[in-house]
Amino acid sequence: MKTLIVHAHPEPQSLNGSLKDLAVTTLEAAGHEVRVSDLHAMGFKAVVDASDYGPHASQPLQVARDSGRAFDAGELTADVRAEQEKLLWADTVIFQFPLWWYSMPAILKGWVDRVFTFHFAYGVGEHSATKYGERFGEGTLMGKRALLSVTIGGPESHYAERGINGPIDDLLFPIQHGILYYTGIEVLAPFVLHGADRLTAEDYPDVAKAWQQRLLTLESTEPIAFRRQNFGDYEIPSMQLKEGLEPEGRTGFGLHVRG
Amino acid sequence: MKTLIVHAHPEPQSLNGSLKDLAVTTLEAAGHEVRVSDLHAMGFKAVVDASDYGPHASQPLQVARDSGRAFDAGELTADVRAEQEKLLWADTVIFQFPLWWYSMPAILKGWVDRVFTFHFAYGVGEHSATKYGERFGEGTLMGKRALLSVTIGGPESHYAERGINGPIDDLLFPIQHGILYYTGIEVLAPFVLHGADRLTAEDYPDVAKAWQQRLLTLESTEPIAFRRQNFGDYEIPSMQLKEGLEPEGRTGFGLHVRG
Repeated sequence: MKTLIVHAHPEPQSLNGSLKDLAVTTLEAAGHEVRVSDLHAMGFKAVVDASDYGPHASQPLQVARDSGRAFDAGELTADVRAEQEKLLWADTVIFQFPLWWYSMPAILKGWVDRVFTFHFAYGVGEHSATKYGERFGEGTLMGKRALLSVTIGGPESHYAERGINGPIDDLLFPIQHGILYYTGIEVLAPFVLHGADRLTAEDYPDVAKAWQQRLLTLESTEPIAFRRQNFGDYEIPSMQLKEGLEPEGRTGFGLHVRG
Repeated sequence: MKTLIVHAHPEPQSLNGSLKDLAVTTLEAAGHEVRVSDLHAMGFKAVVDASDYGPHASQPLQVARDSGRAFDAGELTADVRAEQEKLLWADTVIFQFPLWWYSMPAILKGWVDRVFTFHFAYGVGEHSATKYGERFGEGTLMGKRALLSVTIGGPESHYAERGINGPIDDLLFPIQHGILYYTGIEVLAPFVLHGADRLTAEDYPDVAKAWQQRLLTLESTEPIAFRRQNFGDYEIPSMQLKEGLEPEGRTGFGLHVRG
């Protein structure tokens, strides 16, 4: 495999830092190529502004349009072009981050906001009566696979089907489906570590073992069965799931996973 | 009302900028006090790091613990203390932002990551057999109200109950419930503007009128009926919704809204 690890924690000596380091050594020892985008160590710019889109950014700025034009013209900033190049190089992408306020840390969201430009990650492919662009199962990053490795302070029951925070699969849906699958990437079930704030040194060997087991079976793991957009499940252009396709009683985000 | 507007768009001459400006003039003309945190104009730092937690930040950094200690000691940075002070001053908070990749722009997520510290926004109140801290309906910001004003590029049908992106209420749940209601803030139904990228100058007067109508009826608008944590709906400490409380067939995030 060619694996890109996108890492988003400010402290190298954190649980997230350890899991990132373990992924590098485990994958390399198994003969895989690994590259790391350690966003804090890189001082990665998290905030979109006109300086991202080169000398020809329009005034007033139009984020989507300007990002597409700059992408087409090769005028995106070097840091963003480097990340796009890494994504194109990789066949597997691992995101290592703590769940902060039920989502990604801002530096990782900023990586998405800046790197996933128009014409690269969205606004790709033709629109017709049977196709609404290449997205949700098609697109620039089709054929690649991704996995979220997420540490969470709270206990698992709070994120269960009836847990007060909402089910973890639903909390991660905007990332797994909305960001990753949108671009064509297949998404593997996440590696979720609960109670991260209470983890002790004695707990770590078991955590490390479980993480290594996931890492060494990535190639044989089946992705989440998200529905492809352009292959008959959705009305076009309303993008509503056709009636009757879902298992009985399934609603919400779960509609977009095959039964 | 004392209204804080937290604004997150890089271009002043954008639809978001116009809606923010309209909110200021509309509310002030109606006799309300308004303060604005224009995050891009302020150059608001989006990324959490050790420099946020003063001279006594621990090594290695422990984000939750250090943020709580710095909060208690008055050692948070001036920009974060100013935002916390604005939140305590306000009775109403409006968030104006474009939906980027199904969530907030990174600069706004960074505002949350940095301003919503331990002991201010979470880790508040006692734990006992009948109380799991003050959160989800109680907490530092209890009694205040918030509203998301969100622009979205795509059409409404894509965000409907069966739409491919998932229902907009579910996409906003991690923000409305997980971030805002968590701290005790009551949340009003969002003002959502679809097809924002295709909006023309001719469309704007109707948009402005609808937005003004929401702004001038904020005080009489009923909040979303999220369930309070410590008042009998949840098992403690598992934080699972007790069986049978939900309307038939309701699942997922919707469980946490009263029937």
